Amino acid sequence: MYETGGHPIVYGEKLIDKNLPTVLVYGHYDVQPPDPLELWESPPFEPVIKDEKIYARGSSDDKGQMYMHVKAFEALNKTGELSCNVKFMIEGEEEVGSDGLEGFVKENKDMLSADVILISDTSILANDSPSITVGLRGLSYLEVEVTGPNKDLHSGTFGGAVANPINTLSRMIASLHDESGRVTIPGFYDKVKNYDQAARNEMAKAPFDLEKFKKNLQINEVWGEAGFTTRERIGIRPTLDVNGIWGGYTGEGAKTVLPSKAHAKISMRLVPDQNSDEITAMFEKYFKSIAPDSVKVKVMAHHGGEAAVVSTTSPASLAASKAFEKSFGKKPVPSYEGGSIPIVALFQQELQIDPILMGFGLDDDAIHSPNEHFGLFNFYIGIETITYFYQFFSESNQK
Amino acid sequence: MYETGGHPIVYGEKLIDKNLPTVLVYGHYDVQPPDPLELWESPPFEPVIKDEKIYARGSSDDKGQMYMHVKAFEALNKTGELSCNVKFMIEGEEEVGSDGLEGFVKENKDMLSADVILISDTSILANDSPSITVGLRGLSYLEVEVTGPNKDLHSGTFGGAVANPINTLSRMIASLHDESGRVTIPGFYDKVKNYDQAARNEMAKAPFDLEKFKKNLQINEVWGEAGFTTRERIGIRPTLDVNGIWGGYTGEGAKTVLPSKAHAKISMRLVPDQNSDEITAMFEKYFKSIAPDSVKVKVMAHHGGEAAVVSTTSPASLAASKAFEKSFGKKPVPSYEGGSIPIVALFQQELQIDPILMGFGLDDDAIHSPNEHFGLFNFYIGIETITYFYQFFSESNQK
Repeated sequence: MYETGGHPIVYGEKLIDKNLPTVLVYGHYDVQPPDPLELWESPPFEPVIKDEKIYARGSSDDKGQMYMHVKAFEALNKTGELSCNVKFMIEGEEEVGSDGLEGFVKENKDMLSADVILISDTSILANDSPSITVGLRGLSYLEVEVTGPNKDLHSGTFGGAVANPINTLSRMIASLHDESGRVTIPGFYDKVKNYDQAARNEMAKAPFDLEKFKKNLQINEVWGEAGFTTRERIGIRPTLDVNGIWGGYTGEGAKTVLPSKAHAKISMRLVPDQNSDEITAMFEKYFKSIAPDSVKVKVMAHHGGEAAVVSTTSPASLAASKAFEKSFGKKPVPSYEGGSIPIVALFQQELQIDPILMGFGLDDDAIHSPNEHFGLFNFYIGIETITYFYQFFSESNQK
Repeated sequence: MYETGGHPIVYGEKLIDKNLPTVLVYGHYDVQPPDPLELWESPPFEPVIKDEKIYARGSSDDKGQMYMHVKAFEALNKTGELSCNVKFMIEGEEEVGSDGLEGFVKENKDMLSADVILISDTSILANDSPSITVGLRGLSYLEVEVTGPNKDLHSGTFGGAVANPINTLSRMIASLHDESGRVTIPGFYDKVKNYDQAARNEMAKAPFDLEKFKKNLQINEVWGEAGFTTRERIGIRPTLDVNGIWGGYTGEGAKTVLPSKAHAKISMRLVPDQNSDEITAMFEKYFKSIAPDSVKVKVMAHHGGEAAVVSTTSPASLAASKAFEKSFGKKPVPSYEGGSIPIVALFQQELQIDPILMGFGLDDDAIHSPNEHFGLFNFYIGIETITYFYQFFSESNQK
């Protein structure tokens, strides 16, 4: 256990032969808050198996996926087939910006040295469409506070004559996108990596069923930046979403208040080569610039992280592809995921090691939502694939 | 005690002589919720006297003001100077639409018959500027729910490709006002009573200090419908305010959720001759019409009430004016208040009695807010003025 300013980092290693390649496995034991609790069909922290799925907070993100590595290691160890040195590093702050990890990595570069980092914290396209994640989005997360009058007012006695901070915040949020779904912050798209048509055609080969996507979410229409497909909007384009909003009276019934304050949590998903600190600063500057004189605005930055792109031609990447092909009986396709694993960029920068993102979840695992689950199929095939990876990686990496 | 579907109505009467005029006193014992509790400097339901003011929820709206009538009646009764028959009707649902009152009034017209209805649930302009309220705004209060995907989603895995209900609700709220601060709902202004310049000049005579108004609220600028003064915006123009908004993650820290739902409580203050049912229907139709296909919208009506205008030349009105002049040493001016007392229109319609709105609060009593208070000066001068009213009204009304 390595203490940090927050939750400690768990580290363990088994070094069997310095001539064999070394695999560093990274995962996280912290999870998103389980709210809203009332929507869970079983308690979030009491795992239940139902319909061939494990239901629990963290079952897919990321305790369940981390546990595949533990079981794969256990199996290889028991049967004497372990063909790599193995290091495990499991952190507890991934969902809140991995604050303690950067220092730990910088201070323990020798201990953490490895030939590949294995991370299972992503998804495959479908159980019959194996994929390996090669792109991840970055993140800039902020909180804003809009203050109108210095106290809550009676909406009759003052309404119509004093700026309402909720109405004002709504207008400000509305103006963060234009009619074509593009973010209006000046400079936001300046460093966005553009993909040529050939690259976009390649991405379009990954199977995707728009009607099924809409049906799963029970939506009539998708929404997003004009000129891009749904998968491109998720994989290679930056976004701006309000993750939470609150202000005024939110209880039962009617309270005729003109509130003093309104708040929102707003995050942007970033793509190469946007820089999260730059984007955070741009947001703050722009958001303050669009505030009318009738209100005061505070902007507070939460955490950020950079987007990452992983090589598809490294020995580790080829070994991973071979492992997927053996377990799934089908060659995996490269996929660009919309989520963020900020530590990928950190590992690339500090340890000079490319990670392999071999996740086995599905996009409808409801991670970060009530009733998160992880398929038993995915759990077992994950363990199997990991053991093949050790084998193929070791074969391709004899020192 | 008269039971209703909700909180009971308290009724009492003292009929001393059928040749004397009869005064019906109306008030309410229910109060607004005390939230947010953490902003109260003393417990909301334990009255405290500080700096010559009574601090408690309901001290001004309306328990404290109702209690002035009890004390005035008690004094007149004790000294043998009661010169009118008196009826008290105190309800418990004024803050939530007075649902039980309409039936009670309709079923008890004889019992409630009177020559005037006295209501102290409004304000004076200032302690050195006595005023009698002659205009009140109506109200239409609704709640809206915007649903995007059928469950909370990970904002990385789906963000940018699925409509975010908070962003969408913000855009919809933003589009309810135009650049000049006017409500955009088609037909909203059709029935709004217009005042000619002479009437507006008359209203402008009521003392009002814009700089003090801004300073009290710690705002740099007021906001409202272009072409109208602050007092006109409050007194004679209709409004639309969001009273509460909520959706997504609102706890500490960061949760990267793309929520399924976003909610808002929205109310409109109405003026003569807008009709609250019509406005509610217009809002619902328009709000649904501006929803994009990517979300589903529900609109639920809470309560409504009509605006009211009170005669300034009736015997009761003249007696009230005389009473104020005697207690304050200054002739009161007529004032148009922004709040709503929906039962005023009900009394006018069902009992054919014009009410006298002789409230003694101040606009900065923080009614509906934390630290609601009522000045001792106001409490005592209210009692005094009420006793004068009985005297003058009785003198002008000998049957």
